[in-house]
Amino acid sequence: MGAWGKRDDMVVHRAEPYNAEPALWALADRPLTPLDAFYCRNHGPVPDVDPESWRLTVDGLVERSLTLSLDDLRAGFAEHSLVATLQCAGNRRAGFMAVRDIPGEDPWGPGATSTARWSGALLADVLARAGQRPEAAHIAFAAPDVSELADPPQSYGSSIPAGTAMTGQVLLAWAMNDRPLPRVHGAPVRVVVPGWIGARSVKWLERVTARREPSDNYFQATAYRVLPPQTDPALAGEGISLGPVLLNTAILRPADGARLTPGPVQVAGYAFAGEERTVARVDVSLDDGSSWTQAELGEQAGPWVWRLWRTTVELGEGDIIITARAWDSAGATQPESARHLWNPKGYANNSWCRVRVTCRS
Amino acid sequence: MGAWGKRDDMVVHRAEPYNAEPALWALADRPLTPLDAFYCRNHGPVPDVDPESWRLTVDGLVERSLTLSLDDLRAGFAEHSLVATLQCAGNRRAGFMAVRDIPGEDPWGPGATSTARWSGALLADVLARAGQRPEAAHIAFAAPDVSELADPPQSYGSSIPAGTAMTGQVLLAWAMNDRPLPRVHGAPVRVVVPGWIGARSVKWLERVTARREPSDNYFQATAYRVLPPQTDPALAGEGISLGPVLLNTAILRPADGARLTPGPVQVAGYAFAGEERTVARVDVSLDDGSSWTQAELGEQAGPWVWRLWRTTVELGEGDIIITARAWDSAGATQPESARHLWNPKGYANNSWCRVRVTCRS
Repeated sequence: MGAWGKRDDMVVHRAEPYNAEPALWALADRPLTPLDAFYCRNHGPVPDVDPESWRLTVDGLVERSLTLSLDDLRAGFAEHSLVATLQCAGNRRAGFMAVRDIPGEDPWGPGATSTARWSGALLADVLARAGQRPEAAHIAFAAPDVSELADPPQSYGSSIPAGTAMTGQVLLAWAMNDRPLPRVHGAPVRVVVPGWIGARSVKWLERVTARREPSDNYFQATAYRVLPPQTDPALAGEGISLGPVLLNTAILRPADGARLTPGPVQVAGYAFAGEERTVARVDVSLDDGSSWTQAELGEQAGPWVWRLWRTTVELGEGDIIITARAWDSAGATQPESARHLWNPKGYANNSWCRVRVTCRS
Repeated sequence: MGAWGKRDDMVVHRAEPYNAEPALWALADRPLTPLDAFYCRNHGPVPDVDPESWRLTVDGLVERSLTLSLDDLRAGFAEHSLVATLQCAGNRRAGFMAVRDIPGEDPWGPGATSTARWSGALLADVLARAGQRPEAAHIAFAAPDVSELADPPQSYGSSIPAGTAMTGQVLLAWAMNDRPLPRVHGAPVRVVVPGWIGARSVKWLERVTARREPSDNYFQATAYRVLPPQTDPALAGEGISLGPVLLNTAILRPADGARLTPGPVQVAGYAFAGEERTVARVDVSLDDGSSWTQAELGEQAGPWVWRLWRTTVELGEGDIIITARAWDSAGATQPESARHLWNPKGYANNSWCRVRVTCRS
């Protein structure tokens, strides 16, 4: 077993802070990702929070500030469960780094995406108890993990719009796949914002603050933004702040670089359409998009859950590129090329997915 | 002046039923499109409805059916105004037809998009008066215009999800740009579903029906769907039913095919992100996307309104392709090529926009 109870075949981008994604085959065919394979994106050392002394503060633009123990939270609010896919904004950054280097960032593959059943209290219920004021336009989350990657170094924080917080889909979760939330995933309590980039689902949550403005934390104001290629990534407030996940797909099997024998081969993957839409169709091509076949879609287990897919293609002799793209429920599909999406921090690569295989009999 | 009070330089795709889009320069630089330039998409002859005898029926899964005269509607409900861009799902179909013909459909350019201020009653208020039942999942609209293009010929109808109908953004509109709704645009009353394809904004409205299922009208069940390229477009219920408009952009100036002199040239256009998102950035390229400059964005006049943009580029001697693409508020951008989006009915072409100009000194 690897660090933090993870499988020993995780692709570990950094040991400290711990950043790792599963081997892609470990994501295939399973609607829920096992805890030992769920990706980990951390910005600082993993805190060791004592659940007995842990307190959640709810403050800011509310009628009454709250200080809640874990027992207060679990006993005082209805428990809700939902299945949600989390995806890091840096998912598939490796595809960008093949175009042009992105110094200081890790080369995530498509494995920075995983799905779990989350259980906890509704953020909306907690905010209702505190009496959120009408002028609160954003809900900020703060955590104790100090990141040396921030400028200046600071503990992690971010925010979501109040409208999203009130939807009844955002959880303060203490369980993951019906087990206590593991320490590396944010124990005792983390935020889960279904359909939004993982960066908004703050782990080791210790403070919820209702504000007029978005969080001014480095990870909201400067990082996790799509910048024009020529922009200095150190500038705060530039570019497009990422929120809802973009339509994306990945081929999980066969592996990139696989050596196969000619004949029928099953191609399998995931597709995910984020908060607002669902996956309606997945296409697979062996000729770089000149022609496509439609994959068979698995169950849509909820509005914020990936859709697994598979199809069988007949591979001939030679070097072959297998391409996949998804379409969402509004009829939108993905851009073709990572080259045209490249951005200085390497976020939101939702270009067509391609794997290269070699077939020899 | 052309037919129906329109400018005489409209591009008329069909005289009967009347289908026409403005010359693109008539859309440029004006946040609201004048009535004499607003595009017209009709599926049958334009009805001549007497406003005195007109009645709106509200029925289906409601507590009490309503029959409302125009006076009932105007006097009995609060008047709301909003600015909304309407866009036909066939906007930019000409770009598809350059790839492969689409028999029986008109070659719309990017002018099947226009913006107006609409005034009327909220559909949500009317449904509340009727007492919409919880099992009503869709709200259907019916009109008297009989279309010979439908199979079998039938009067026009469509539907939207009940959740969208209840948002307080869908109007039963009797005014357009502060003037009485023109006959060709649906007088006396039409639906306006902001951010959705124009096909859901039913003109000459005469019936609103709360239902369990989407409308089974031809224009909902069969037309206005994105089908895989190899699918027979006559099949009902196939493909992806179009609803929220996809992120798109168009270059309105210079015109495609323009002859210019080398030097600085202003490029101007619109971009539109549909219901859920807004336009965050527009890029312009002179080298087919190898490098981009960011255009200056005009005002965002509301959540469901296009954003006008412009920039000045320096053109050299020769044949030049000017390319534009938009990014939305979630960080998504448009696919590169119409070839990869082609579909049998020619809907939802939101590929990069390109115009070809020739520069000679």
